[in-house]
Amino acid sequence: MNQATLDATIHLPVGSPPLACVDIGGTKVAISMADHRGISGKVSEPTAKEGNNDALAQQIIRMIGESCALAGIPLSSVGSVGVSSCGPFVLNDGLVELAAPNICGGLAGKARGLPNDWMSALLEAPLRAAFKNVRVENDGVGALEAERRWGALQGLRNCAYVTWSTGIGMGLCVDGHILRGKNGNAGHGGHIFVSDNDEALCGCGLVGDVEALVAGNAIARRFAAQGYADASALFTAARAGDARAIEIIDALCHVMGRALFNITALMDLQRIALGGSVFWHNQDYLLPRLQAFMHGKLPALTNGLEIVPAGLGERVGDFAALALVMR
Amino acid sequence: MNQATLDATIHLPVGSPPLACVDIGGTKVAISMADHRGISGKVSEPTAKEGNNDALAQQIIRMIGESCALAGIPLSSVGSVGVSSCGPFVLNDGLVELAAPNICGGLAGKARGLPNDWMSALLEAPLRAAFKNVRVENDGVGALEAERRWGALQGLRNCAYVTWSTGIGMGLCVDGHILRGKNGNAGHGGHIFVSDNDEALCGCGLVGDVEALVAGNAIARRFAAQGYADASALFTAARAGDARAIEIIDALCHVMGRALFNITALMDLQRIALGGSVFWHNQDYLLPRLQAFMHGKLPALTNGLEIVPAGLGERVGDFAALALVMR
Repeated sequence: MNQATLDATIHLPVGSPPLACVDIGGTKVAISMADHRGISGKVSEPTAKEGNNDALAQQIIRMIGESCALAGIPLSSVGSVGVSSCGPFVLNDGLVELAAPNICGGLAGKARGLPNDWMSALLEAPLRAAFKNVRVENDGVGALEAERRWGALQGLRNCAYVTWSTGIGMGLCVDGHILRGKNGNAGHGGHIFVSDNDEALCGCGLVGDVEALVAGNAIARRFAAQGYADASALFTAARAGDARAIEIIDALCHVMGRALFNITALMDLQRIALGGSVFWHNQDYLLPRLQAFMHGKLPALTNGLEIVPAGLGERVGDFAALALVMR
Repeated sequence: MNQATLDATIHLPVGSPPLACVDIGGTKVAISMADHRGISGKVSEPTAKEGNNDALAQQIIRMIGESCALAGIPLSSVGSVGVSSCGPFVLNDGLVELAAPNICGGLAGKARGLPNDWMSALLEAPLRAAFKNVRVENDGVGALEAERRWGALQGLRNCAYVTWSTGIGMGLCVDGHILRGKNGNAGHGGHIFVSDNDEALCGCGLVGDVEALVAGNAIARRFAAQGYADASALFTAARAGDARAIEIIDALCHVMGRALFNITALMDLQRIALGGSVFWHNQDYLLPRLQAFMHGKLPALTNGLEIVPAGLGERVGDFAALALVMR
């Protein structure tokens, strides 16, 4: 779907209440409003990490007001708030709080230099005190719902969205059911182990999980000393025929291929849609390698499996929160 | 639950039609009948692997008749047939056929010496022609349903049953939904990759997957030359203080621990029940090691996770088929 078609599709019916779309990352919070005219009022700020552990929730409530003002929408008319957030989550009285090590200083230890000692950041409780309808999901679930509604996973009951970006995340759907798990943390597939490589420390504290080995920030961390400052530099070198860069990317594809194979063996999927900046900017290079990795492995499970680029491309994240609350 | 309590529990109500319980393994087929008196009429034979590719289905139909005769139940009174089978499955017109490399000679190649060239073994279609109500699931699903109904997973919405036996299999439940996948093959967690060890070939053709490294048949294959003829010999040596045996088992626990961690990260589980002969006979040795492996890894996902022995113990398999069809 091209962008014009996409934007034309994603309009609420005239007369339905506007929706607030909240995207929480470890670095920034982005909020926009959706109504019958489309999506507007986008505001973005660095993720709040100072003060009490309700600072992030209060930031979001304030920014929703600012987004409404920018979009010319009365705050009181907001129908639902969809929140697509980085995780992991913990539940407190059934309400989501964030236990993300890149936000909560109390979890990460002093090494990260976070300016707080939070063990979790409040999220759902303050939002529910301010708004009537709130749905919070991890960003893998949000992206999956967006891809199932408007992207490459439409009409599929057994599918996954996998982001290969600064981090690695997944949204998983089996038998038409989107997986959430006991605290809404299903899909933390960046943190599975697929190899014995123990040279890489993940932001979550694990050593050698998939994210530690292949995520965008891991590429920079692991290979800068070899002359590849970041993923972009690495792929540029590989395209120019640099044998060492090609070898490194083959190893990255081996790790990511195993992660994709593992979710296929566990969930018997039909299609996996890939997005995220590392994948998106290098899909011509990566897609055939990932498909080749899968080919012929345990045919009863991989026959008929498709690995495709995300239908929403780089805009998956923009529509994740909306997909959570749009009927 | 002790065996007497269990047997007392698993009686159909008086007047409800008897159920045929079919357990298909790569080596043998076992069939019994359940009615208001309990379970009876057990018959068992080597799995049919000669003749046309409906030989297994015809064997099952014949054996159901024999089981009925033994149990004193008229064949015509059989209400439903539950089939818990080894996999993987393929679907043909929506009906399950087996594509198991230890049954189908056409899949396995000549190396296995199977006396047939089947690419798949018919299963659901012939059974549906003979019986009105048939439910076929992979044996991981069957065992999971038995553990959720009568065993250690009662009342849980996010849980898994993992068998550590001759092979490795799983049944997975997320948000109260039992995962099946596009062909009913969800839970093939024995075939995920968690390490780089490439010295072990799996029966499925993969090299270095979990089953190739730690399953009962893998232990015999990998370590016989070191003086440990099978899992039993290995654990006996470890209990006697044999340093090499202890080291081998630690490595096995590292692989299985990673498999358990991976499904937890992907599905945010509350409890994993372990069964299977390798685990069951050595649970005092294995359970604390597996629990220790998990401890402290990505706490938002592993906090509150329990790893426990199967409530049905060695009898999980006996009740798997029944759990599929008993209301």
